[in-house]
Amino acid sequence: MYLNNSWYVAATSNELAGGNIVARTILGQKIALFRTESGRYAAVRDACIHRQAPLSLGHVVGETVQCRYHGARFGSDGRCTHVPGQDAISPKAKVQSFPVLERHGYIWIWMGDQELSEDESTIPKNLSLIDAQPGMRSCSGMFESMRANYRLLNDNLFDITHAEFVHPESFGGEEVRFYRNARPGSEPIDRGLTYEVKERSIHFRTHADSLGDEGAPLWRIMMAQARNIESWTGPLDFTMEVSWQAPCYTSFHIYLRPAGQPDAQPVEFHDFHAATPETAHSSHYFYTVGINYGDEGTLSHLAEETRNVFKQDIVLLEAQQATIGDLDVLSVPHASFNGDRLQLEGRKILDTLINKERQAKSIAQEI
Amino acid sequence: MYLNNSWYVAATSNELAGGNIVARTILGQKIALFRTESGRYAAVRDACIHRQAPLSLGHVVGETVQCRYHGARFGSDGRCTHVPGQDAISPKAKVQSFPVLERHGYIWIWMGDQELSEDESTIPKNLSLIDAQPGMRSCSGMFESMRANYRLLNDNLFDITHAEFVHPESFGGEEVRFYRNARPGSEPIDRGLTYEVKERSIHFRTHADSLGDEGAPLWRIMMAQARNIESWTGPLDFTMEVSWQAPCYTSFHIYLRPAGQPDAQPVEFHDFHAATPETAHSSHYFYTVGINYGDEGTLSHLAEETRNVFKQDIVLLEAQQATIGDLDVLSVPHASFNGDRLQLEGRKILDTLINKERQAKSIAQEI
Amino acid sequence: MYLNNSWYVAATSNELAGGNIVARTILGQKIALFRTESGRYAAVRDACIHRQAPLSLGHVVGETVQCRYHGARFGSDGRCTHVPGQDAISPKAKVQSFPVLERHGYIWIWMGDQELSEDESTIPKNLSLIDAQPGMRSCSGMFESMRANYRLLNDNLFDITHAEFVHPESFGGEEVRFYRNARPGSEPIDRGLTYEVKERSIHFRTHADSLGDEGAPLWRIMMAQARNIESWTGPLDFTMEVSWQAPCYTSFHIYLRPAGQPDAQPVEFHDFHAATPETAHSSHYFYTVGINYGDEGTLSHLAEETRNVFKQDIVLLEAQQATIGDLDVLSVPHASFNGDRLQLEGRKILDTLINKERQAKSIAQEI
Ligand code: FES
Ligand code: FES
Ligand code: FES
Repeated sequence: MYLNNSWYVAATSNELAGGNIVARTILGQKIALFRTESGRYAAVRDACIHRQAPLSLGHVVGETVQCRYHGARFGSDGRCTHVPGQDAISPKAKVQSFPVLERHGYIWIWMGDQELSEDESTIPKNLSLIDAQPGMRSCSGMFESMRANYRLLNDNLFDITHAEFVHPESFGGEEVRFYRNARPGSEPIDRGLTYEVKERSIHFRTHADSLGDEGAPLWRIMMAQARNIESWTGPLDFTMEVSWQAPCYTSFHIYLRPAGQPDAQPVEFHDFHAATPETAHSSHYFYTVGINYGDEGTLSHLAEETRNVFKQDIVLLEAQQATIGDLDVLSVPHASFNGDRLQLEGRKILDTLINKERQAKSIAQEI
Repeated sequence: MYLNNSWYVAATSNELAGGNIVARTILGQKIALFRTESGRYAAVRDACIHRQAPLSLGHVVGETVQCRYHGARFGSDGRCTHVPGQDAISPKAKVQSFPVLERHGYIWIWMGDQELSEDESTIPKNLSLIDAQPGMRSCSGMFESMRANYRLLNDNLFDITHAEFVHPESFGGEEVRFYRNARPGSEPIDRGLTYEVKERSIHFRTHADSLGDEGAPLWRIMMAQARNIESWTGPLDFTMEVSWQAPCYTSFHIYLRPAGQPDAQPVEFHDFHAATPETAHSSHYFYTVGINYGDEGTLSHLAEETRNVFKQDIVLLEAQQATIGDLDVLSVPHASFNGDRLQLEGRKILDTLINKERQAKSIAQEI
Repeated sequence: MYLNNSWYVAATSNELAGGNIVARTILGQKIALFRTESGRYAAVRDACIHRQAPLSLGHVVGETVQCRYHGARFGSDGRCTHVPGQDAISPKAKVQSFPVLERHGYIWIWMGDQELSEDESTIPKNLSLIDAQPGMRSCSGMFESMRANYRLLNDNLFDITHAEFVHPESFGGEEVRFYRNARPGSEPIDRGLTYEVKERSIHFRTHADSLGDEGAPLWRIMMAQARNIESWTGPLDFTMEVSWQAPCYTSFHIYLRPAGQPDAQPVEFHDFHAATPETAHSSHYFYTVGINYGDEGTLSHLAEETRNVFKQDIVLLEAQQATIGDLDVLSVPHASFNGDRLQLEGRKILDTLINKERQAKSIAQEI
């Protein structure tokens, strides 16, 4: 069950450079993504209307994609603009096309009702925190199709208590335990986590004053990197702001300061996760990582480290999916622990949105 | 849906040399093909009647195939002729056998009603153009199971307009555009294509007077090879005769002459394509290539080139099949272009034959 | 269709050494096998009750297995003993657990009704012939999941006439032909095979006086090995005792003596085969091989040879399964030969036991 009326990340902008056509299954549909010569982005069903050759095997010609088999061409709106040796082309000759746009280094696609695609509010705004802030360096990446439903990644990012067990050498520290005592609210607190639930999103903030060796190792590593020193041994103040937005977007914004210096320029680490559903059992996992210090080398080193950390999660997500098999991810019986509060709120939001969409559809069909 | 009452290519003769037993799925059935010591060809169900061990794992003993598991033997008629340590063998002990014969370097199998197998008319006659003509050199090949329905290869060979896009460096030239203006008839024409539709076959002839650089590159290469010169730059007269025969046979006969010399000895290139259905989604692709000039080296070089050209098609056919998935190849909605005339005629013939066969069967069952 | 109320081999004891957790599908269920720090063996469903992470990805902590994802711990009885950061744990928080015990170097599991698991009679007793006899050396092994139903291995071991065709260089000799003249009874005979059918087992004994070159090559090799001589050329007296026990246990005990010396200390070769069902189409094939002579080198050499012999069988069993496909192994039509008598008796026992178990279950459900 997908939420159809939402923008989804289909590709990184880089992937479509140089006339490259990307073949990608999104929400169960085979899509060909390309960029015309004038720079317009396009997404069409990856099957020529003539004999079903995948259009992704063809190449970009001017403002069209040309089928590799018999040379028919299709514009970014899907309309067939050229059939070799044929003057008349039926105006009905059209391959299905999908709205696309580029934002924040990603190509986004709309798979739902086309009249609703004008609304860009489903593209997470806080991505601009990463790519538009002065002094930020960021880079994006993507895993090959991850063999796990996208909701398992939502779950994973909603309950960072797992970091203590899965990422002890990087993100795992005592501060993730605050998740188990999450309190509704938005006021700042010294040690703990407060959260606010909105209609399509959840925002939460965790803060730890004077975090020492009990904190995650990565914070001390970053403090040292930013100051170009061997190691950072003192206590630090840790702030993390997290935004989850339905159906599959999570961004983390982490601010580190020497303990007791609330006005110091913070060392920042931001990351953004998007799990675009490929099928019911697989997803495309895109991410962006950004820091506000160091040089390109610092960034690429940290991005590599982070990638390895995410891989630790993917092992688990794919193993969960293998256990769940063909069942619906959420229908499998499960126990819940104290740390699951935010996750359960997130699941509820998503379920509500999907149900609303289905009801709207069935009402529309009745009318 | 297969046409059952037809001879199909099961293997090349070479494959059964030296006592080799070939395991091959044909029209969805697992078959073991072998040649007895006296030279008789045989095809039996590839499962021992005793405990289902594949007979293709065994070996040829005299006029039988011996099961590798417990040593039972079966003649080319499928009858069990020997059970180790057992005198009496039930006359009902029989593995299913299929008519086979060798023609033109291929082993042909009959999977339909055995009483109809006497009729060899479904073995394409024009193959003899390749293997029996004085001065012809030919060689045969086979691809591993191609993951595409055999009808996709029919379609491919019926509409050579694809050559301009898929094989620009070999077979792709302006003359393939004649397909878009195919005219019924059998009279010779200067530039164009005429075709005749028969009950089980389609024959067509395309001719181009004085073809220059706009023609396919391969023709000039062959003219030069045949004359042992570096390159051929003059115009040439091109004639191509194509025969398609249901369910899956296509042969091309190409004649090249210096322009304006209709009585000159032509440079000839012939090829034959057979796509034996393996399953609904895969086929065994056999081909023979022949030329009337050069030596073995010329032939093997050209055969290698041709094989690479066919591989370009296979990429597309397998991609089409992947798009079509488990659906019936012809049931998928598709648009048709001017170049599809012959293809549509061929599909009609095959559909008619398959329907007739099914009706005959259901009538037979009623009686 | 499995026989549920039986002990099955789940692993070799070695596999669980050093805190290793084994993930294995048994009778269609995913199981995690481990050994606690105090040495207790445990088997639980390989899916954490929290979020379905496989427990086999975790590690052993004290008397529990700790989930790798969020650190929950489960005892060998399946009870959840610890949730990080949480004091109260519901007594219902429990992962399904299965009785396990260690016998003869194997870990055995009980997948049926737990109240019946006290009865150890389904663990073959004659395994002690191998591991408990003074002077015996033995070693155990396991193949990766064999893609064949366990009953195909039963069939294989019940009809050793196949050795003449499948293992001519080792076990294949004229004495296996006795299987074709199996006679009920338990009295010793000079050349032949007598068998006794019991409720859950079949025992048979084959003897050949004064076996020469017509016997299996392996016997002469073993006689030479035991005497540390180049080769053994004289005749020998061969005795083989075989026990099959439902559902999947077969042990062979072979005694070789110089011909006419019934009181001589025999050269012995014993092996034990267990095929634990993994799914309807695959099994875990465990075996133990033992000899009463030579040193560790002799044993490991012989074990390696035997492993290669078993692999010859696996090729056939997997090929049979591929032919049978998704059908029920025994429902496929098949002819039977003289050598199949014991096999058919064995199949009957197993069918009867499985039917009884199903009836008992449906009666229990009615009550
Ligand atoms: S399949 Fe695309 S033009 Fe023919
Ligand atoms: S399976 Fe062929 S002889 Fe037994
Ligand atoms: S999945 Fe095992 S503790 Fe969460």
